[in-house]
This record gives sequence, structure tokens and C-alpha cells, in this order.
Amino acid sequence: MIKTKAYGAVDKNSVLTNMEIERRTPHSGDVQIEILYCGVCHSDLHTARNEWKTTQYPCVPGHEIVGRVTAVGDNVHRFNVGDLVGVGCMVDSCGTCPSCAEGEEQYCESGFTGTYNGPVFGGENTYGGYSQQIVVKESFVLHIKHSEAQLASVAPLLCAGITLYSPLVHWKAGLNKKVGIVGLGGLGHMGVKLARAMGCHVVLFTTSLSKIEDGKKLGAHEVCVSTDVNQMQNYHNQLDLIINTVSVPHDLNAYLQLLKRDGSLVLVGAPEEPHPSPEVFNLIFKRRQLAGSLIGGIAQTQEMLDFCAEHNIVSDIEIVPMDYINSAYERIVKSDVKYRFVIDMNTL
Amino acid sequence: MIKTKAYGAVDKNSVLTNMEIERRTPHSGDVQIEILYCGVCHSDLHTARNEWKTTQYPCVPGHEIVGRVTAVGDNVHRFNVGDLVGVGCMVDSCGTCPSCAEGEEQYCESGFTGTYNGPVFGGENTYGGYSQQIVVKESFVLHIKHSEAQLASVAPLLCAGITLYSPLVHWKAGLNKKVGIVGLGGLGHMGVKLARAMGCHVVLFTTSLSKIEDGKKLGAHEVCVSTDVNQMQNYHNQLDLIINTVSVPHDLNAYLQLLKRDGSLVLVGAPEEPHPSPEVFNLIFKRRQLAGSLIGGIAQTQEMLDFCAEHNIVSDIEIVPMDYINSAYERIVKSDVKYRFVIDMNTL
Repeated sequence: MIKTKAYGAVDKNSVLTNMEIERRTPHSGDVQIEILYCGVCHSDLHTARNEWKTTQYPCVPGHEIVGRVTAVGDNVHRFNVGDLVGVGCMVDSCGTCPSCAEGEEQYCESGFTGTYNGPVFGGENTYGGYSQQIVVKESFVLHIKHSEAQLASVAPLLCAGITLYSPLVHWKAGLNKKVGIVGLGGLGHMGVKLARAMGCHVVLFTTSLSKIEDGKKLGAHEVCVSTDVNQMQNYHNQLDLIINTVSVPHDLNAYLQLLKRDGSLVLVGAPEEPHPSPEVFNLIFKRRQLAGSLIGGIAQTQEMLDFCAEHNIVSDIEIVPMDYINSAYERIVKSDVKYRFVIDMNTL
Repeated sequence: MIKTKAYGAVDKNSVLTNMEIERRTPHSGDVQIEILYCGVCHSDLHTARNEWKTTQYPCVPGHEIVGRVTAVGDNVHRFNVGDLVGVGCMVDSCGTCPSCAEGEEQYCESGFTGTYNGPVFGGENTYGGYSQQIVVKESFVLHIKHSEAQLASVAPLLCAGITLYSPLVHWKAGLNKKVGIVGLGGLGHMGVKLARAMGCHVVLFTTSLSKIEDGKKLGAHEVCVSTDVNQMQNYHNQLDLIINTVSVPHDLNAYLQLLKRDGSLVLVGAPEEPHPSPEVFNLIFKRRQLAGSLIGGIAQTQEMLDFCAEHNIVSDIEIVPMDYINSAYERIVKSDVKYRFVIDMNTL
């Protein structure tokens, strides 16, 4: 076993603090990684505070991990010591169910093993990226082709990036498609950048007048203030696809009505209380679809990272030291971040 | 103009009664049809009673029309006097919008012209199939290849049949697909027959123990009593597609959970009050979709009629005389029909 420094919560009421955890010595097929940066996802906070009632303690969050390979076990063929690599939300899955066989490990029928708090679906607890190093099965490690200088800004691609990239690809965003992104936060700002790079006409929907300029700078062709009924009316029956990143309950009809025939409204945020029920007529009369999507498979995550490297896409971030994490959580709750905190792991 | 006997409502509080209406003399491109049978759809009742607040009076319902061509206008090329034909829910549409151009006239961007109560989207009132004859634009008339003896049972295919056939085809029902049909009424019993003929493994979901035997006779491989939590549990993550015909509010989560990854729950019935709001997690964790579907396009309606003729599929019906219609409506409200009333128009 390898002792490693980490930062985590010992129970649901505690702030995060220094702790020591153990990582396995690399087995055959394992990659040992020195963690350089780790993005901070809202899920980290939900889990650290047991807000989803599934947390095992101690809890070391973090699933937007970038770092450098420091050792490899036997039979590792795709990684060498010194490689820049990433690890996202998953570190294992059954590998044999239809979803895994089709490269959709995030929908593993037995439940994938999360990078942290893995035992949701059984097994030993797992500890995430708020730590100095991690040991991960080769097949769940990603190559990073961005420059080393961009590394901190790459971290959020591992969760926020793939969460938007996957539904954009699945629902065929691309040239001549008019795509809406709802909400300009950690997820939404990646959606704007990715959809723009895919060649879509991008409309950002935001409740914040203050985000209009930012939305356009990030790549939105148009920004619609969603609380303005007249502005919304202009988009009725106009959009092929809307990815909705907002995780507080809100009226979905307002967005369903913006879809063309056969359009899809895809939810990637889950509110604690359900959204008000959508009108069935809004689905029936244009054969519209309301769907959900969860991160993406490993192969698609690599595809996303390569796409981002090619299009020079990274996340807009604020780099913080490890001991700022509890303050960062408070600011996340207030949506006070543009647009993702990333921890410099040298500060641990 | 051609005076023709009909049966309709003069206001929302009246029972249906004899009346005389006028049909246009066939213009160029028109087909004049002697109506032999007309199916009775729940929409007829909703419209006659102005339950959707859009009814223009007098209201002559009926959009499951079968009959014989008695005259054709100039430039009619596909129909001859004596042909057996059908007319469904639409008698016109703009013909130029993207939906019409793609043969999806039911989603016409200007709104299709309904066979009755057409002016929902503007234009003159239209009168439906509770009448002796009708004059319809050739492009909205369907060929019937069933035997003449089956004609009455073919009528409900024009609405109930296509309402189920279209989503089954759109969502790729077929061999090796496990398809659920929710509700065994006019729509649901067609869904069971059609899905079976398409080669699906068909599971009927019903609240009525009394419908188990019927469901199997109609073609369901399995019948699940949806009020039995244990029975429902057996189908978790099992179905590729569920078509839900039930138009009273109910818990959609119970059905979303039965879908495999990427499965779709398609609503073809619209409740007056919304369903309880579905859980977002049930969409996100398997990338499931909640959708709606409305009848089908004209080309697809012809395809459905041909498919049914080839597979010897008709509706299970109870033939009634015209003056039974008010009693039939009362029985429809109580779901007391197996599975569709069809009016013998000789009795008008």
C-alpha cells in the first residue's frame, strides 16, 4: 500500500480537512498518477455533505483529475511514466454488460465504480482527486493532448466537459443545428464552447442579465434572458436540441415549446425536488422528447479530450489552494464562480 | 353544393341529433365518398362537448371513415369510382412547411385541417364522418386493401391504428425488441396487435385483472397487472419501448423504470390534468426519454393500412346504429367497449 496525503470529510457535518489515505501498489494493468490539479464539481459538495444519502466516510471527493504517470504495473501498454493523463468520474465497471460492451460504462448495469464514494453500488470505498496520487486501472485513464500550461483548465473537462459533450454528440448536434444551452455555470459554459466548436448555432438561455456578455464571449451566437417572455417567444419551435444544466426546479414547458418537431430537451442536472410536471401536449404535438444524460463513456471521454485539444477548448477556471476548498464550496452554493474551481494539488 | 344527411351537436350541452350539412361539389383533385362506416374516437366526444374549448358548432364528429368512391373531380389519378377508401383525422395541410414536405402532415407548422372542427387552425368549419358522404382532396384519401367484409373493422385503423403504428415505427419496434403497451382500450388493443405483427415481444400493462385473457388473445406475449408492484419489478430495465395510451394522470416513473438504457416512453394519450412529475434521475441514469406522438402522416397511414391488410389486422369492434351514438358516448366514458364502436352509416 502507498500512504498518500488527502483532503476530505470524516462525517456529514465536518468541514474538509487533511487526512492520510492508502492507495494500492499498482497491480497488473494499473497506472499510478501524481495528481497535479483537481476540478471541483457540485457533486463533490453533495457527497461530502451526504446530501444524496449515499456517502461512506471518510469521503475524499474529486473526479476531475489531471496529473502525470509516476509508475505503471505489468501489462500496461498505453501509458508510460511521465505521460499527462486524466481521470474522470469512473474508475471501474463490470465490463461485460451490454452498456459496458458498447462503451457506455456510465450506464453499467451493475453500476460503475465512482472515482470517489464508489460503494454506492457495492465494493470498497474509493477516494477521489483531492489527494496527492491515485492508482487507476489503465482502461479508465485518459490521455491528455493539451499543452502542459493548460493542464489546470483541462481538469473540468473530465466531468463538466463530458457531461455536455456526450448528449451533444448523442443527439447529433453539428452544422446547421440550432442548439440551446440552459444555464451558464460550470456545465453550461462548457456546453456553449463545445456546441460552438461543433458548428452549431448556439443560443444561451440565462436568468442573469449579467451573463449576456460572458455568454457571447464564450461562444454563444445569441443570448436569451429566459425570464423575458417576449424573448422566449422568439425561439418557439426554433431549436433542434436543448441541453438543460439547471438543477433547481423550473418550468420545463418554457423550453419544450422552443423545440422544433422531433427536438429533444436533455436534462443533465437533477433537482432535489422534481420540476413542475411538463404538459403532455407539448410533447405530443411536435413529437418532442424530454430526456436525461449522464457523463459519458470512457472512449467518448477520450474523444472529447482530443476534440477539445484540437479546438483549443478548456474550462474557464479559478485556481485555488487545497485549504480554500470549504470556502469554495460556500461560493459554489451561491453560484459565485466563473466557471469552475480547480485545486492546485501542490498546495496539499 | 351537395346536401347530405349528418348527425351532430348544435352546442356543447346538446345530445347529437340528425342534421343536414353541405359538401362541396368535387373540385379538381377531389374525391367524393359514400361513407359506409365510421369509427367512434374519444376525441369525437371531447369535441362534441367542447371539452377542449375549441369546438365550432354545429359539430359533426367522426375521423375514422371508410367508404366507397362515388365521384371524382378532374385530375384525380389514384382513385376511381367504386374504390374502397378511408379518411382519417386530416383532410388538408399547408403542403409546404418542413413537416408537410417530409410527409409528416400531422405536425404541419400551420396546423393541419382536421376532418371535423377544422378551424382550430383557421379556415371554414369541417364536418366529419357521422354523415352520408364526404368530399376530400385526393392526397388525403387512403386506399383500403382489406376485403369488403372487413370494412367496418378497418375504420378504427384510420385513427387508433395509425396513432400506435406511427410511434412503433418511429421508435424502431421490430424483431428482438421488447415493447410495452400501457392500457387495453381502443388505442392499446391496436398497439398489441401491431407490435405483435411487427415481430416484437409484447408486454401489455393493464390495471384490470379482467383484461389479462383478452390481452393474450389479442397478441400480448405477457400481461403485467400494473397495480402489482412485484409484477412491475420483474420488468425493471427490460423494455426497449413503451407506448402509453392511458389519458388519466398516473405515475410515469413506474414505467420509466421499466425501460432499458436509451429506451423511450411515448405518450399518445393526453390527460386533462398533468401526470405527476417524473423523476429526473429516472431519465438521467439510463439516458431514457419521455416523448409524445400524434397520429401519423398520410404516407405512413397508407403504409399502416397496407401492413394491416397484409397481416390481416383489424380492430375489435361493436357495430352500432347512428342513433345509438349518445349511449355509445356514455359507455366510452366508462371504458365499456371492446374495443371500438363503429357506426353503420346505413342507419343514418
